[in-house]
Amino acid sequence: MAYERKNIQAMNAYTPGEQPDAARVIKLNTNENPFPPGPAVLAALASVEAGSLRRYPPPAAGGLRDCIAGLHGIDSSKVIVTNGGDELLRLAITTFVEPDEAIAVLEPTYTLYETLASAHGCGFIRLQLEADWSLPANLAESLNQRQAKMCLLPNPHAPSGRLTSSDSLRELAGNFKGVLLIDEAYVDFVDPQLQHSCLSLLSDFDNVLLLRTFSKGYSLAGLRIAYGLGAETLIAPLYKTKDSYNTDFIAQKLAQAALEDQAYARESWNFVIAQRAWLQDELDMMGFSCEPSQSNFLLVSMPENLQAKTLYQQLKDRDILVRYFAQPRLEDKLRISVGSAEENQTLIQTIRHLLAT
Amino acid sequence: MAYERKNIQAMNAYTPGEQPDAARVIKLNTNENPFPPGPAVLAALASVEAGSLRRYPPPAAGGLRDCIAGLHGIDSSKVIVTNGGDELLRLAITTFVEPDEAIAVLEPTYTLYETLASAHGCGFIRLQLEADWSLPANLAESLNQRQAKMCLLPNPHAPSGRLTSSDSLRELAGNFKGVLLIDEAYVDFVDPQLQHSCLSLLSDFDNVLLLRTFSKGYSLAGLRIAYGLGAETLIAPLYKTKDSYNTDFIAQKLAQAALEDQAYARESWNFVIAQRAWLQDELDMMGFSCEPSQSNFLLVSMPENLQAKTLYQQLKDRDILVRYFAQPRLEDKLRISVGSAEENQTLIQTIRHLLAT
Repeated sequence: MAYERKNIQAMNAYTPGEQPDAARVIKLNTNENPFPPGPAVLAALASVEAGSLRRYPPPAAGGLRDCIAGLHGIDSSKVIVTNGGDELLRLAITTFVEPDEAIAVLEPTYTLYETLASAHGCGFIRLQLEADWSLPANLAESLNQRQAKMCLLPNPHAPSGRLTSSDSLRELAGNFKGVLLIDEAYVDFVDPQLQHSCLSLLSDFDNVLLLRTFSKGYSLAGLRIAYGLGAETLIAPLYKTKDSYNTDFIAQKLAQAALEDQAYARESWNFVIAQRAWLQDELDMMGFSCEPSQSNFLLVSMPENLQAKTLYQQLKDRDILVRYFAQPRLEDKLRISVGSAEENQTLIQTIRHLLAT
Repeated sequence: MAYERKNIQAMNAYTPGEQPDAARVIKLNTNENPFPPGPAVLAALASVEAGSLRRYPPPAAGGLRDCIAGLHGIDSSKVIVTNGGDELLRLAITTFVEPDEAIAVLEPTYTLYETLASAHGCGFIRLQLEADWSLPANLAESLNQRQAKMCLLPNPHAPSGRLTSSDSLRELAGNFKGVLLIDEAYVDFVDPQLQHSCLSLLSDFDNVLLLRTFSKGYSLAGLRIAYGLGAETLIAPLYKTKDSYNTDFIAQKLAQAALEDQAYARESWNFVIAQRAWLQDELDMMGFSCEPSQSNFLLVSMPENLQAKTLYQQLKDRDILVRYFAQPRLEDKLRISVGSAEENQTLIQTIRHLLAT
């Protein structure tokens, strides 16, 4: 007999990107950082004492939380540490949205948002991004008219890499009556010359929730650690609904070490930014076109007479994984993560070889 | 403005047991294992490569999952690995119980169950255990009559330590129309001579979900790792609702190492069983009375003229933490975790000293 709720019977599980075991595979499909975590993280790992593992971890990750607050110059009451960005997204939906209310997204977007809405059993409003992946005009009005309780926006946008300015988001936050969740999973890879930051929105609006993660910028996808920033009135309810000990001792400790070594993190971000430009140039020269990206991936349109799905499979056959999305507006494109210099070169050489044959 | 759902505005957060920083404090309040994790876990920790942390972990914890299935002699499709037992409890409620349905518990019980129901916004049915903490007669009928969609039973029971036989649970599972979640967080501490096991229920019933954790029996509370066992039809929906990467790479790896070293784990369980008997004898001799416990804690009733809350505070003043519950049927008792031999002796000496003054 099926005991699960009807909405869960009806839904599909989220499909994570492929994670092959083989070490020879070049993984440019899940936007991981090409660098391993730095020496500060290694030292923290080496200093973990076995005895500390038998005890429950700090339930609110106090040390890490204070460190995050310090980095951003805000009060700790505006910070919640979560078991990866996934947990924050789920908590936000289940905490702020009644099952008879709805969340809104701008498609195409991160497909997990829909999975989370389906699991919660709430409504899901699909609006469309403009052709250049920018936000449509009068977005706040559309959201209010549709009575969206929350809007989830990745920024930089996934999968295009497009950055929406903090001014645009400020206007949206001011006019939208629900909670604006800005998913900043990739914000560390924004060109520092743009001086982009949404932190000032936190003090001006009580409906803005920022998501940050250690998975990409800090090379700690394996540890499942992220955080949310928002007004204290928005953060406090999440402490009621999160699992009582939601993040583990080692993840807290290593994330803190990573955060405290900003120089190392900055170096990896700068590397990704430089390699992103190189990759884009190389792809452009071969007749591909890339969306302008402020993230650690490129959304790549195919030259004439080449199918994205074909190239995806050809690369996979040669042990290079990139991401193909069989969905509207994306089925003629590939999302390619910026890898190490060697991986990026191998990718370009392989594509060049494929195009020549 | 308050954006959270009404049920969340109205609820209180779960209060975890106190976790003092001071190393001098003897913690007998959160049922942690007195032993650190064993050499196999240490070796696994030392072998973690930094590079592996930058990648997403296996989303379903495949290696650990297979290892768990092998240990219990069941198929991997009957296993789900979770971020601590908390996650499995939450997933079970949010996956199987509609917001307009209800879960049932037998009080007194683990207070987190009510917190989770409040966060989900579903109903909460309170039945009462008998005076000796046994299940009431005709429990299945009561549950069916009240239309409980799920019943959560800790076994051994917390906070009394009482073990309900698998025969009783078999009868309950067969007659109850909802999902029976047996929370076996403490089952590793059952006297092996009793040959207690509920594993056979899994093949006979499709409505039984067993919770196991690494927090207590395997000394890994700090890592947040646990698992659920059930019929494939009960486990599969949980894979839809869990966070996509719910457990981290290091936790998966260390838990597997802990599970593979059954001899070390067994040694800690035998130690706890022996110390539990010693503690009970000592407390009995001083005029306390203890419920018969098959867990790693004792529920202790006070001798005449001694208030539980007073003793709790006196012990706390002397850096010994035990658990006091200000709730019906428990306010005249203390729950005391079985600690190391030295901790247990210090506890007994301290109580003896307090009673003499």
